[in-house]
Amino acid sequence: MAVELKGLTKRSENYSQWYNELVVKADLAEQSAVRGCMVIKPYGYAIWEKMQAQLDKMFKETGHVNAYFPLLIPKSYLSREAEHVEGFAKECAVVTHYRLKNAPDGSGVTVDPAARLEEELIIRPTSETIIWSTYKNWINSYRDLPILCNQWANVMRWEMRTRLFLRTAEFLWQEGHTAHATREEAEAEARQMLRVYAEFAENYMAVPVVKGVKSANERFAGALDTYTIEGLMQDGKALQCGTSHFLGQNFAKAFNVQFVDKNNKLDYVWATSWGVSTRLMGALIMTHSDDNGLVLPPALAPIQVVIVPIYKNDEQLAKINEKVDGIVANFKAMGISVKYDNADNKRPGFKFADYELKGVPVRLVMGARDLENNTLEVMRRDTLEKQTVSFDGIEEYVKNLLDEIQANIYQKALNYRLENTRKVDTYEEFKEEIEKGGFILAHWDGTTETEERIKEETKATIRCLPYDADEESLTPGVDMVTGKPSARRVLFARAY
Amino acid sequence: MAVELKGLTKRSENYSQWYNELVVKADLAEQSAVRGCMVIKPYGYAIWEKMQAQLDKMFKETGHVNAYFPLLIPKSYLSREAEHVEGFAKECAVVTHYRLKNAPDGSGVTVDPAARLEEELIIRPTSETIIWSTYKNWINSYRDLPILCNQWANVMRWEMRTRLFLRTAEFLWQEGHTAHATREEAEAEARQMLRVYAEFAENYMAVPVVKGVKSANERFAGALDTYTIEGLMQDGKALQCGTSHFLGQNFAKAFNVQFVDKNNKLDYVWATSWGVSTRLMGALIMTHSDDNGLVLPPALAPIQVVIVPIYKNDEQLAKINEKVDGIVANFKAMGISVKYDNADNKRPGFKFADYELKGVPVRLVMGARDLENNTLEVMRRDTLEKQTVSFDGIEEYVKNLLDEIQANIYQKALNYRLENTRKVDTYEEFKEEIEKGGFILAHWDGTTETEERIKEETKATIRCLPYDADEESLTPGVDMVTGKPSARRVLFARAY
Repeated sequence: MAVELKGLTKRSENYSQWYNELVVKADLAEQSAVRGCMVIKPYGYAIWEKMQAQLDKMFKETGHVNAYFPLLIPKSYLSREAEHVEGFAKECAVVTHYRLKNAPDGSGVTVDPAARLEEELIIRPTSETIIWSTYKNWINSYRDLPILCNQWANVMRWEMRTRLFLRTAEFLWQEGHTAHATREEAEAEARQMLRVYAEFAENYMAVPVVKGVKSANERFAGALDTYTIEGLMQDGKALQCGTSHFLGQNFAKAFNVQFVDKNNKLDYVWATSWGVSTRLMGALIMTHSDDNGLVLPPALAPIQVVIVPIYKNDEQLAKINEKVDGIVANFKAMGISVKYDNADNKRPGFKFADYELKGVPVRLVMGARDLENNTLEVMRRDTLEKQTVSFDGIEEYVKNLLDEIQANIYQKALNYRLENTRKVDTYEEFKEEIEKGGFILAHWDGTTETEERIKEETKATIRCLPYDADEESLTPGVDMVTGKPSARRVLFARAY
Repeated sequence: MAVELKGLTKRSENYSQWYNELVVKADLAEQSAVRGCMVIKPYGYAIWEKMQAQLDKMFKETGHVNAYFPLLIPKSYLSREAEHVEGFAKECAVVTHYRLKNAPDGSGVTVDPAARLEEELIIRPTSETIIWSTYKNWINSYRDLPILCNQWANVMRWEMRTRLFLRTAEFLWQEGHTAHATREEAEAEARQMLRVYAEFAENYMAVPVVKGVKSANERFAGALDTYTIEGLMQDGKALQCGTSHFLGQNFAKAFNVQFVDKNNKLDYVWATSWGVSTRLMGALIMTHSDDNGLVLPPALAPIQVVIVPIYKNDEQLAKINEKVDGIVANFKAMGISVKYDNADNKRPGFKFADYELKGVPVRLVMGARDLENNTLEVMRRDTLEKQTVSFDGIEEYVKNLLDEIQANIYQKALNYRLENTRKVDTYEEFKEEIEKGGFILAHWDGTTETEERIKEETKATIRCLPYDADEESLTPGVDMVTGKPSARRVLFARAY
């Protein structure tokens, strides 16, 4: 697992290459031998675990419980909900057999043709169909509602072009699937979960997001409404960070899930689903990192503080060890994850570059002069600024610094987004501006036709109709392309 | 999700049916629409989550990190390690295609024959092969070792006869895969993880286990040694609860993983793997539960204490609510998970039976007389004993009671095992005793031939050569079947 520190491409040279290299060099993930499937390495997985733990806490605080549903879905289930199958069913991994046998020529194993499944099974691309076929047996009356289940799972979509974390054939995610007695309750649930996602993105990932509703064309297959949070990456492209769907009664009707309401009347159940995935790792990396490597928000950094000694001889090291042991214990007691790296087989310069690459928020260095002066050198990863501070009270200093870094990288990302969100009123101007990247607020006539034309001609898509919009944006205008009436400005961008 | 309380079969009538009914009635799991794949329901999953959290903590305390490897494995990988493929490759789910298309007759979707994979992919039955093909790129020198990775994942083995938790086509597990520079270090790792499993089983699940080493015949496919923990269920059948494998250099050789050692010499890497699965849920259920339902160890119970009010009118309920609110807050502050069930749409008797069925360790009831006397009725699930105790200091009383229940159910299970472990010296006696169930310590000549004959004739297998054995058991003797020399007594049982 030797780290190759040299030669990280600069963002300005080739942003896409910078990202691909960084993911691998920072030991986050790598391609596997299976096309489009990644290996998430321990350092990358440690970040994902922190994300999971926080999200899971927030789901439970909003009344949800976890459950687990089968990986495989009968092929016929996918076509039960007509719109769903249109949007999803095509690029899936299909299980057709359940046995191998020794190859007659002794060359290894071969598929046993006698072990063919009567009905093929699909590796779940998402679980609405298998879950609603299960909920059918759980729901009889309004007393059985709501059902508020979440599942942490792997899913698979056979993508043709893949990129680590951003688009992989297999990925990890959570998918919430809820069942409700009324339309209002289901809509409120879908919106609540979007708020949870936005809070998580902003307060933990330090990624500012625009909350809004998707256009009909960009909705999840089978949904009546899709709510989204959209981030803006440093190259000016948008990244959809999470979605929450109000599914109406579509899946209940497809799987015939009815309940007896309070008035003893039969009705179909109302549904939502919502998910975020390991794609969030891509958003995290691309929002904050720089040409030296990762920049991680303290709230999700596996190592928040690293301490490196610089010494000329064993006697000096022993003295530094002694001083540092005390603060390591103090940091741990404060819930701050700290690593003291006094390994003697790597030079300090190598360690510095490595922890920079890995995005450790705070680095403390103690050398001979620091021993004399009772000081430490503090380096913050976000700005790379160094400062010499007193050893006494370093714990409190670092604690505050971690908070400051968390706030600073959020603010920096927010400033970037604000600077790169523009209003545009003509299609000519739009075509020019979209080349510069960023979000564009423009008027749109509400038709899929116009939306598709813009996408084809400019590669820009409608990211959402933002919830938070100024008065002018909510004032009716005219579509920049067709001149037809427009109810409000919507948010365009090129997107991942 | 209505609970059907009546009609749980008694263990003495039909143990197997009792188990199957209990898993479903206690809302732990159910069969899905996909053959052999289960749905783990929220209450069952909450227990599994507690198991996961504790195991994960223990893995990290012993220096392990989590990572994630692909679900799918190229077919050819399975035949790289010759013994491994013999033991494993046959009953697997095989992915042959990656696309569906609309059926020409409009009847739904069909597999697109044009989207056939060049090489079929197997859903992992275990991940040694894909992980060692990955480790190859991570390991160059002894400095890269050890690698101590664990993965929480779903796996699939196409079992013909399935039972909820005990044997399912898809199941959840963790699999540790470690790489070492020396044989000694790898063997020590495999033994350490068996100790971790045993501590978890005994201290958290309250399931006493026999630690030992498997006979060659019962080893994991590709291992040089398999260590196991074996529990004894209430019907006298053994259940293998977890295994840890010393894999030698077999997988390193199969995937050509070499490293430069400290003396600059090339050598193959030494390996271990170890795993426990949702099968532990079966062990937990079958070790402790009774004819009234689940009995859960407090350390893993999602709800440790339930409080039920009995009241005649709203005024009484209000008074009880007020008193109970205080102790609920105190329990939570003490880290005790508590549920106050004052829902008015179910009678107390129904609630009592439901929480008994679900194995909640402690039930507190407060009625009108308790209000007057400042008391509560306490029922402990393990013995079903009721006691009236003072309201004052109830928190401390319950805390101690939970510890007592945890210790008591462990002791009860241990006593059962001790009473049902017998030494036998003749094959005649063995055949008689094995019908009664339980563990039998007998002499064996060490050959697979004798082992297979015993299995065929009695359905008993060698569970392990126990580590902890009395002196007499370690004294050489003669095989009960063949009369040939035997080095020591080994542990036989019929098993799940």
